[in-house]
Amino acid sequence: MTSRTLIKNLAALPDGPVSITGWVDTVRDQKKVQFIILRDESGAVQLVNPAVRELDPEGVSVGAAEAFALTEQISALSHGTFLTVAGELKHDERVKLGGLEVKIGSLDVVSEALETPIAADSSLDKRMDWRFLDLRHPKQHLIFRVQTTFEHALRQYWIDNDFIEIHTPKLMASASESRAELFEVGYFDTTAYLAQSPQFFKQMAQPAGFGKVFEIGPAFRADPSFTSRHATEFTSIDAEISWVDSHEDVMRMHEELLVAAFTAVKAKHGAEIAELFGVELEVPTTPFPRIPLAEAKQIVADHGYVVPRADADMDPEGERRISQYVKETYGHDFVFLTDYASSIRPFYHMRHADDPGLTNSYDLIYNGVEISTGAQREHRIDVLIAQAKEKGLEPEELGFYLDFFRYGVPPHGGFGMGLARVLMLMLDEHSIRETTFLFRGPARLLP
Amino acid sequence: MTSRTLIKNLAALPDGPVSITGWVDTVRDQKKVQFIILRDESGAVQLVNPAVRELDPEGVSVGAAEAFALTEQISALSHGTFLTVAGELKHDERVKLGGLEVKIGSLDVVSEALETPIAADSSLDKRMDWRFLDLRHPKQHLIFRVQTTFEHALRQYWIDNDFIEIHTPKLMASASESRAELFEVGYFDTTAYLAQSPQFFKQMAQPAGFGKVFEIGPAFRADPSFTSRHATEFTSIDAEISWVDSHEDVMRMHEELLVAAFTAVKAKHGAEIAELFGVELEVPTTPFPRIPLAEAKQIVADHGYVVPRADADMDPEGERRISQYVKETYGHDFVFLTDYASSIRPFYHMRHADDPGLTNSYDLIYNGVEISTGAQREHRIDVLIAQAKEKGLEPEELGFYLDFFRYGVPPHGGFGMGLARVLMLMLDEHSIRETTFLFRGPARLLP
Repeated sequence: MTSRTLIKNLAALPDGPVSITGWVDTVRDQKKVQFIILRDESGAVQLVNPAVRELDPEGVSVGAAEAFALTEQISALSHGTFLTVAGELKHDERVKLGGLEVKIGSLDVVSEALETPIAADSSLDKRMDWRFLDLRHPKQHLIFRVQTTFEHALRQYWIDNDFIEIHTPKLMASASESRAELFEVGYFDTTAYLAQSPQFFKQMAQPAGFGKVFEIGPAFRADPSFTSRHATEFTSIDAEISWVDSHEDVMRMHEELLVAAFTAVKAKHGAEIAELFGVELEVPTTPFPRIPLAEAKQIVADHGYVVPRADADMDPEGERRISQYVKETYGHDFVFLTDYASSIRPFYHMRHADDPGLTNSYDLIYNGVEISTGAQREHRIDVLIAQAKEKGLEPEELGFYLDFFRYGVPPHGGFGMGLARVLMLMLDEHSIRETTFLFRGPARLLP
Repeated sequence: MTSRTLIKNLAALPDGPVSITGWVDTVRDQKKVQFIILRDESGAVQLVNPAVRELDPEGVSVGAAEAFALTEQISALSHGTFLTVAGELKHDERVKLGGLEVKIGSLDVVSEALETPIAADSSLDKRMDWRFLDLRHPKQHLIFRVQTTFEHALRQYWIDNDFIEIHTPKLMASASESRAELFEVGYFDTTAYLAQSPQFFKQMAQPAGFGKVFEIGPAFRADPSFTSRHATEFTSIDAEISWVDSHEDVMRMHEELLVAAFTAVKAKHGAEIAELFGVELEVPTTPFPRIPLAEAKQIVADHGYVVPRADADMDPEGERRISQYVKETYGHDFVFLTDYASSIRPFYHMRHADDPGLTNSYDLIYNGVEISTGAQREHRIDVLIAQAKEKGLEPEELGFYLDFFRYGVPPHGGFGMGLARVLMLMLDEHSIRETTFLFRGPARLLP
């Protein structure tokens, strides 16, 4: 590896020679002195060089030619140029950026850069066109550090609780949940479909006796909508567990998991998040509030907003308002809306034993937006077939899925949660485009 | 949750009442006594019930009717039925299975089972048809426990070394590596392609200044081959790091990573792997042997096998033989074959500074089979374009990829590795179908 010190580690070193690498953030090319802000994956540092603007015509001063050349080289640097730099570290409280600077000894251009096509005020769409440059900004960079910590904490919770990690296929012979919004793939002499979720396959792990499983992987929806919350490809966080008594057991696992993940993110990145996003991250307390959906709609109506829907469902504005109500009433950023009507839930959600109009299901709302759906699944084959028929599905179409319930299966439930949505809401961003490495939408397949 | 003790935890309990759940593995229905082997995700236990074969016609004995009913119920149990059982745990050294048994008090059938369509001697293809039943076997189950531990250890190494986790898109506007073996997806009014690897996008993280990145996710190849090592969809383990001097830096990270993962798997599952797979797992020592490919071909030739290829490449038999040679000579299960000819490597592999006929690349061979390809990437835009043209590619086709190199980029390199192949070779299995949760091949999209 190129021998170098990460910029974040300079602070702990004594004054003296250092080697660093990174890209040019900015150059301040003053008459008598030149400054470079050099950035690497860990931070930024100020480099300094006393400018030598004239070539000594007599050539008597030792090193004068080199000093002149270095000055010229720095003047010519463009934003984004990757450098290796050898120099002298000096701690100096007067330097705003970290209280230290590096006096440049020598500087090697590793990779030159064309002038950057984006600026701080570029449109989101233009920034997406040049996502690899957009991601250089400390704020964008931090999003993916947070993502890394968040996911690792989820997995650590699952590992500590004896879950098995699975990778379910994204190529399917038939629809996973609904026949709408499916992408078709030419598959040799036939057609395959991209999985809209790992739903059927994580359920398959239940009759397989895996007990508790998780997966973080891509899901695909041929959804033509252009909202800030939708993508045609997204990273789905999924878990499914055996021997639940109801959706309450799923919610309990779900909230413990989020507490573990938020705790890890706050510990590792809390200060940076506050600095760059202006967000004081709160670790939620358990239990999260739980409100049956019908009751939530009533609360929202009592506060002046009647959800304008003919069916039993909530709408985004209603979710925003119930979330606000919960924040004011319970001081909580999360709320489980529970017991959705059977009419607006998929056929495989288990229904209440005493009221088949309601399901053992929930949506999780975080800071006003839905991030997850969970449920106990119907595992009794005869009930499952009846519910599928009621929804207008033909049992023949569901062949392989229904087989999972014919050879013995434990009661089970789980949830799916959108990674980019959680990050968006955690960091108070306004679109999942910001919290997705490379967004995919109806009009975006590039880069 | 259903109140229960995991079967593996029974051994630590004193004699007394217990509740357990699981599925019926076997029933031995003897005249005077009935035995059930009950299995859950953690193990198996023997249940016992003194048979009461006749209903006491007088109805005088207390509980006689219940005892008769329980006996009948057990006689009717089929393999795969999921049960909850309350009973009395009794430690008894004479019981072969774990030195304990549970005398059944009451037994509830949670989910009945049709007769299983597969048997121990079913063909692999038939087992794949009924994968959810096949996975109930302790051996298959262990594969995915090992997978879980293996992946978590990889990620722990990456987290400890400050890597960022990324999720690259699987939907692309153009080919990622080659125009062959691409799956086409109908994408609204246009066509998308499924990513054959995250190659281009993990490289994108380099000009983005991410430094070190990893991803474990699906990759897709429209490869019509039916070998034991190929799939149309597979889980790819990818890493890419900045500031490498050569492929040697990539190999060093790669071998450290494998040592970490093998150490974790051996610690957690070594004994079970030995018992169920007959494999004494060895943690490899570093450095792994490195042999330039040309030299490896010569060694194999000197030992009687001239690779029957017109080009500079190895073949599977050659890989098997060089692996055997390395095992005999260095006692090592792994070998890096290095410095592949430019003619047989993709355009983006960096070439030797002093010999453009060779690349800064390697394949990693484990127990005779290739599991990974790694390389330093060419990051100099002019050289990259020249190499692309030489391979017959049009720079226009590579538009967005080439842009990654025009705005500054550090030297970098990485590898991609097939998860199912590593597990197959680690556990001495004969097909990746065994080590994939749900295999996808040219003729398999179900279940």
